Amino acid sequence: MSTVSTLTVPRVRFKDPQIEMAHGAGGKASRRLVEGLIAPLLLESCERALGDAAHVQLGTTQMAITADSFVVRPLRFPGGSIGELAVNGTVNDLAVSGARAEVLVTTFVLEAGLPSSVLEAEVRAMGDAARRAGVRIVGGDTKVVEHGHADQMYITTTGVGRPLAGVTIDARSVRPGDRVILSGPVGDHGITILLARGDLDLEADLRSDTRSVLPLVEALVDAAGPGVRWMRDPTRGGVATTLNELARDCGCGVVIMEDDVPVHDVVRGACELLGLDPLHIANEGQFVAVVAPEHAARALRAVRAVPGGERTCIVGEIQAQPACTVLAMTRYGASRVVDMLVGDPLPRIC
Amino acid sequence: MSTVSTLTVPRVRFKDPQIEMAHGAGGKASRRLVEGLIAPLLLESCERALGDAAHVQLGTTQMAITADSFVVRPLRFPGGSIGELAVNGTVNDLAVSGARAEVLVTTFVLEAGLPSSVLEAEVRAMGDAARRAGVRIVGGDTKVVEHGHADQMYITTTGVGRPLAGVTIDARSVRPGDRVILSGPVGDHGITILLARGDLDLEADLRSDTRSVLPLVEALVDAAGPGVRWMRDPTRGGVATTLNELARDCGCGVVIMEDDVPVHDVVRGACELLGLDPLHIANEGQFVAVVAPEHAARALRAVRAVPGGERTCIVGEIQAQPACTVLAMTRYGASRVVDMLVGDPLPRIC
Repeated sequence: MSTVSTLTVPRVRFKDPQIEMAHGAGGKASRRLVEGLIAPLLLESCERALGDAAHVQLGTTQMAITADSFVVRPLRFPGGSIGELAVNGTVNDLAVSGARAEVLVTTFVLEAGLPSSVLEAEVRAMGDAARRAGVRIVGGDTKVVEHGHADQMYITTTGVGRPLAGVTIDARSVRPGDRVILSGPVGDHGITILLARGDLDLEADLRSDTRSVLPLVEALVDAAGPGVRWMRDPTRGGVATTLNELARDCGCGVVIMEDDVPVHDVVRGACELLGLDPLHIANEGQFVAVVAPEHAARALRAVRAVPGGERTCIVGEIQAQPACTVLAMTRYGASRVVDMLVGDPLPRIC
Repeated sequence: MSTVSTLTVPRVRFKDPQIEMAHGAGGKASRRLVEGLIAPLLLESCERALGDAAHVQLGTTQMAITADSFVVRPLRFPGGSIGELAVNGTVNDLAVSGARAEVLVTTFVLEAGLPSSVLEAEVRAMGDAARRAGVRIVGGDTKVVEHGHADQMYITTTGVGRPLAGVTIDARSVRPGDRVILSGPVGDHGITILLARGDLDLEADLRSDTRSVLPLVEALVDAAGPGVRWMRDPTRGGVATTLNELARDCGCGVVIMEDDVPVHDVVRGACELLGLDPLHIANEGQFVAVVAPEHAARALRAVRAVPGGERTCIVGEIQAQPACTVLAMTRYGASRVVDMLVGDPLPRIC
């Protein structure tokens, strides 16, 4: 989900004549659409800049809210399915905004002719994922469109949660010297979907990383408290896009040690075949955090102690220069500018 | 949106082999799907039986939440458009649950190739409707699917609100002698959509009734307070389906005076041509309320005094018998049983 800060004059700057797949890819084109058209016309002032969830006051309670639609193809893939993704994705958007999901609502757009067993499997997957994530699903809606007017089903989930105590996620609080923490290997989800489609003639033992990252985020926040400056889940557009948004929002340089970023061999191999950068591939069970240097070691230990957090590592740090830029360094001292995702090399991965 | 009461044993009773258009029509098939499959597997306990919005506690604040997907065809029609519908429908689901919408989040599933001007028009319509309804849109998400995989766009909106003071909407509080109040003419929205599709060779001056009913509901609640027993917006499935749900949930008979139900001539004419009952046709700007008899006259005056509420009327009353049944009486004393909508005579009207 995207939220934006106040825009007093609704000015549409979006000039693309029509919507293309890239506008849904989470990269540059998506940003152009959201910032140039949707946000100026639609979104009211929020307390935070472009983030994963809006934090607003309701009565005397501070709440966080996020919504996402899921259109992944195929519906089921190694390690997960659209239903599981729809729950975990929303729980994670809240988690990285510094909130614990409490209730979800969900809507289905179903295609006439969908076997009931396919729907039942996804509804079960949602129920199971919700129980695992500790969140209640309290309502929903179902619409049906004619055969051929959706791909079996699209699911939308909205999550409402409450802020975790002691932490405020804000890119503007990021300072040079802060460390960049990554919760595990990158690109598993995107490449799993690619392989599941059979687009690549490759057999591989790879699974989507879809999961709730809330237990990891809670351990991080417990250990580092206000030392946690910023978090994000690197879904569409991957770690590269997420870090570019951070660099832009904080005004600093984000320098990562490329060799320290965990990447499964299968993911690396598939990316080499396709000419893609693993840093641009979507993840569904990871987060990136920026933590003050004095808290970094303790935070790392705490997250690693949580089941599923063992591969968390420090992958880089914030530097004053180059401003608003993401650099990847190799151990031999070479560096390259890492850009946001451009185009949509892997459409419909979530 | 639908919510349900606790079901401790998740038991799937839904036996239809595949999803059909009727499962999205809001009538009997929809109910079978929600109660037989989705609710047992997915929905947690709520404080109210099947209703338009879930009321849950968040921190120290009581909140109401509802979600709906919109797939109406065509996107624009006399009196409104999908964007306006998406805002008003969600505001209304909260209103008839006895809550005032405060924030909305929205997601778009867009079809590649959609002219940007079409999207811009709907985003503007949403912004305008939100301002009119006094609700803030605070976030959203956009996905794009390939050309041919959606009908230009589907929109999902989730609304969060706070309960109106002094009223609890609960079918179980309905008593024989209570009056049934209807806010205006029925069937305008459904027949407008039908005419806009050109399915019927008929030119008519008819507009969708899409609007926020919150000002009318607030007037009703201010005037009748706890005398307001129950409310619902008769969207898919129409007034007939809504009243059948009421009859089932309260255990009483709902007896309406058919001649007192306002119906525009065009709507009546189109229904006669098609063999449809105006009571089965969808509305997007009306509500049905059950009010204690001693409050009914004052409530009626109060709602009629609000702009747009002039055609509000008492259309029937609650009787002990026939239990769980809706009866329509004519002025000549004839009566007929009014059933829920069966099948889907007018698909994709919201």
